Amino acid sequence: MGIILPVQSHEPLYKQVRNAIEQAIRDGQFAQCPLPSSRALADELSISRNTVNLAYQEMLSEGLIVSEERVGYRANTAILSSSPGHAQEKNPPEPNTVDWRRHLQTQAQAPLPEIQKDYDWQAYPYPFIYGQVPSSSFPTTAWNRALRTSMEYPHVHWSLRDGGSSDDPLLVEQLRTNVLASRGIRAAPEEILVTLGAQNGLFLAARSLLGPGDRAVVENPGYPDIAHILAATKARVTPIEVDRDGLCVGDIPRTTKLIAVTPSHHFPTNVGLSEERRGLLLQAASDNDSLILEDDYDSELRYTGRAAPALRAVDRERVIYVGSFSKFLAPGLRIGYVVAAPELIERMRHERRYSVRHAPGQIQRALALMIETGDYQRVLRRYRLSLRDKWEAMNSALRFIIGRDFLPSTGGTSVWVPLPDHVRADAVVLEAAKRGVLVESGAPCFTAEHPDRQRFLRVGYAAIPIEAILPGLRVLADVIHDERKQTKR
Amino acid sequence: MGIILPVQSHEPLYKQVRNAIEQAIRDGQFAQCPLPSSRALADELSISRNTVNLAYQEMLSEGLIVSEERVGYRANTAILSSSPGHAQEKNPPEPNTVDWRRHLQTQAQAPLPEIQKDYDWQAYPYPFIYGQVPSSSFPTTAWNRALRTSMEYPHVHWSLRDGGSSDDPLLVEQLRTNVLASRGIRAAPEEILVTLGAQNGLFLAARSLLGPGDRAVVENPGYPDIAHILAATKARVTPIEVDRDGLCVGDIPRTTKLIAVTPSHHFPTNVGLSEERRGLLLQAASDNDSLILEDDYDSELRYTGRAAPALRAVDRERVIYVGSFSKFLAPGLRIGYVVAAPELIERMRHERRYSVRHAPGQIQRALALMIETGDYQRVLRRYRLSLRDKWEAMNSALRFIIGRDFLPSTGGTSVWVPLPDHVRADAVVLEAAKRGVLVESGAPCFTAEHPDRQRFLRVGYAAIPIEAILPGLRVLADVIHDERKQTKR
Repeated sequence: MGIILPVQSHEPLYKQVRNAIEQAIRDGQFAQCPLPSSRALADELSISRNTVNLAYQEMLSEGLIVSEERVGYRANTAILSSSPGHAQEKNPPEPNTVDWRRHLQTQAQAPLPEIQKDYDWQAYPYPFIYGQVPSSSFPTTAWNRALRTSMEYPHVHWSLRDGGSSDDPLLVEQLRTNVLASRGIRAAPEEILVTLGAQNGLFLAARSLLGPGDRAVVENPGYPDIAHILAATKARVTPIEVDRDGLCVGDIPRTTKLIAVTPSHHFPTNVGLSEERRGLLLQAASDNDSLILEDDYDSELRYTGRAAPALRAVDRERVIYVGSFSKFLAPGLRIGYVVAAPELIERMRHERRYSVRHAPGQIQRALALMIETGDYQRVLRRYRLSLRDKWEAMNSALRFIIGRDFLPSTGGTSVWVPLPDHVRADAVVLEAAKRGVLVESGAPCFTAEHPDRQRFLRVGYAAIPIEAILPGLRVLADVIHDERKQTKR
Repeated sequence: MGIILPVQSHEPLYKQVRNAIEQAIRDGQFAQCPLPSSRALADELSISRNTVNLAYQEMLSEGLIVSEERVGYRANTAILSSSPGHAQEKNPPEPNTVDWRRHLQTQAQAPLPEIQKDYDWQAYPYPFIYGQVPSSSFPTTAWNRALRTSMEYPHVHWSLRDGGSSDDPLLVEQLRTNVLASRGIRAAPEEILVTLGAQNGLFLAARSLLGPGDRAVVENPGYPDIAHILAATKARVTPIEVDRDGLCVGDIPRTTKLIAVTPSHHFPTNVGLSEERRGLLLQAASDNDSLILEDDYDSELRYTGRAAPALRAVDRERVIYVGSFSKFLAPGLRIGYVVAAPELIERMRHERRYSVRHAPGQIQRALALMIETGDYQRVLRRYRLSLRDKWEAMNSALRFIIGRDFLPSTGGTSVWVPLPDHVRADAVVLEAAKRGVLVESGAPCFTAEHPDRQRFLRVGYAAIPIEAILPGLRVLADVIHDERKQTKR
């Protein structure tokens, strides 16, 4: 097969594998045929399949190889031929080729890094990944039924039409009466916009409100994507600390135009914004003429106690409420909504028209039908119960196995786990992956210079089966223990 | 319990109950404990449980109370303390309400107006509307089958996952091998991006390439939305005339960075860009270091002769190809794609990630399955035949009834009909609508000062049944005749 590992090396085994594969590709071995399967290569090299998978994952994430349905991995020849290798001499640059650096717009710098996720989470025995939903917990029967109905008269018209800048009126009505009411939010139809997931709501709000020189505030740690979305408007994005009571509201500069916050379950720690801070935040917004971008991406997933009402339920003017169906239906559906003042919704509708027009009609109608029939509430209840069981399993297992204090959460789909001193999150993540445990480092949620960057893991439990939680956390505890020993040496 | 109904009242009983509960809440009775169950309250007041439920429902929908798992209803104290009641005297109306004009970003001016469409086209006996697809011509059976399969193993993973900035690899593969090939386009996976319809492709390209001061060119007449999309980047947008051979390429300024063009079927006239002009356009782009944004929104719908290859098939570097499934599947699906240089696709993928993430997974997978099974090609063939029949019916009817020369088209879904001198398109559209005929004025496709603005109708034939074409055009001819008489008086 021609993939040869070095005889001696101080590099981790998976790195050696990765480098050997890359060398083989650069030598032109896989120009025509796919790369060997992880099983075949593991057999060939007499190493574990996980190690090969890790090597492939890293190359995949760096774009050196591409994944192809029914084929497996292939060398990404485009990238390889433009990097140090044989191909470059053959094609001298044409005089008139496009200089893309000159043509592409310069990108704004965001204060938080980009999240790079491992999208092959199903390959891991213990996928403590955040943000994915396993197909087993998706309400397939109810959704299929709603899709089928959405293709029948009279619904099919709404499923197929070009809606211009409008939304499906049935979905808007169902959001108003059955979804928003449970968050204490009253909204007229002209205060509601259907979006392509919460991401699209955040984007449209930022685009409508921010420009060069405006100041916006994000949480630190926080959702990295919101920092990128706000920074893309050329606004100055200021990260503000978060503690056990949520965003440190007192630190927000008075000149801030937009405050992006996750009050129900702070992203990524899952703490709730305290009663007192909520009051201070609303008061500060009113005093300073700021607007609040309330990202309420998973408030439905609460397992204990009483939910505080949405900020939007309290202040119907300054709060822009962003909701999503990604967390308890599926992120792949790409459907969410915004509730805000009619003036802002009108502008966001305009921005949406000239970027995507509208969310796919059939998904809007099928979702509306699912809510109207009550299937949605039933599914949500059932899903919440199953997540609560996992949440309890996580809490008790973490308490006894990790043996450390961790931030208490009332809901969400992940636990924010602090690491012992001197143990780095990135190192734990890498070693855990080698042992089949997929967890996420907290680092990408912090600014680059934050002292706590490497001190937390984000351990998600939506995608992992409940019976895998305890054994998976045991492996994770071993990894942390081993890392700790190593740092002490 | 302290909920007291008025002795006498003209209000419906449930309203009286509702008001009594609200009063009790405002008096602070339910600050700590949940509201009584509907059964308990019905017993207490000796009224039916349905009446109590109705009262609770209304309060729930207005956000006055919230529903809690296992507890029942609770007063939403946050709302009540800030609404008309005892609390408000404490908080007099604030002076600083939001001045939205100050908060919203100023909008760029586009050289073309906004299209305002009548989305209730189904109410007209003769809907010669452009851009809509009747549900009768949608391949419901094949689409339902593909949707069902997309929810089964192994496809369901791709339907539901958060794909981050990636696309469904099966759809990318099917686009490459089965869709793009028919346009003469070769593309590697890293040259393809799946978008939310063509609109999203145009938007992402503009956002990646244009900034303040850059010059972009659009067609005049042309697709109004592209003018708005380009203008939103603060680029200078220059409209260039179109004649019987398509865009007047010689008039494009040398300093142009991006040229937006519809070469296959010019929007809205349906003329094709001539062989000679195509060569000149590609040469000019190369000479001036311009890029070409090729909007190939409906080239599949060609009924006679041989299609010229896509510009992208000739120049794989400077041409950004935008395709769509809106015209021959349905605009409501919101699915399209872009083919461009890997450097640009990478940037557009970044812009897409922070605006919508990706097109809904299930729609990507179902479409991929439909192409893979061959259903797509079968459906397209059938649909093309049925549209060709309509196209022929339109051509012969227009020739004899309208009795005027009109631009010959080789395909598309509309005919561009010139009006007699002094007859204004807007007047014809208004009068035709009164007589049950929905046609579109050509005016919105022209710049405001263009002399031909009021001289054309756009008569679409995708949505109208074939048997309605002849009688519908007869009514339209009458309207034009009457308008002409009136202008002569």
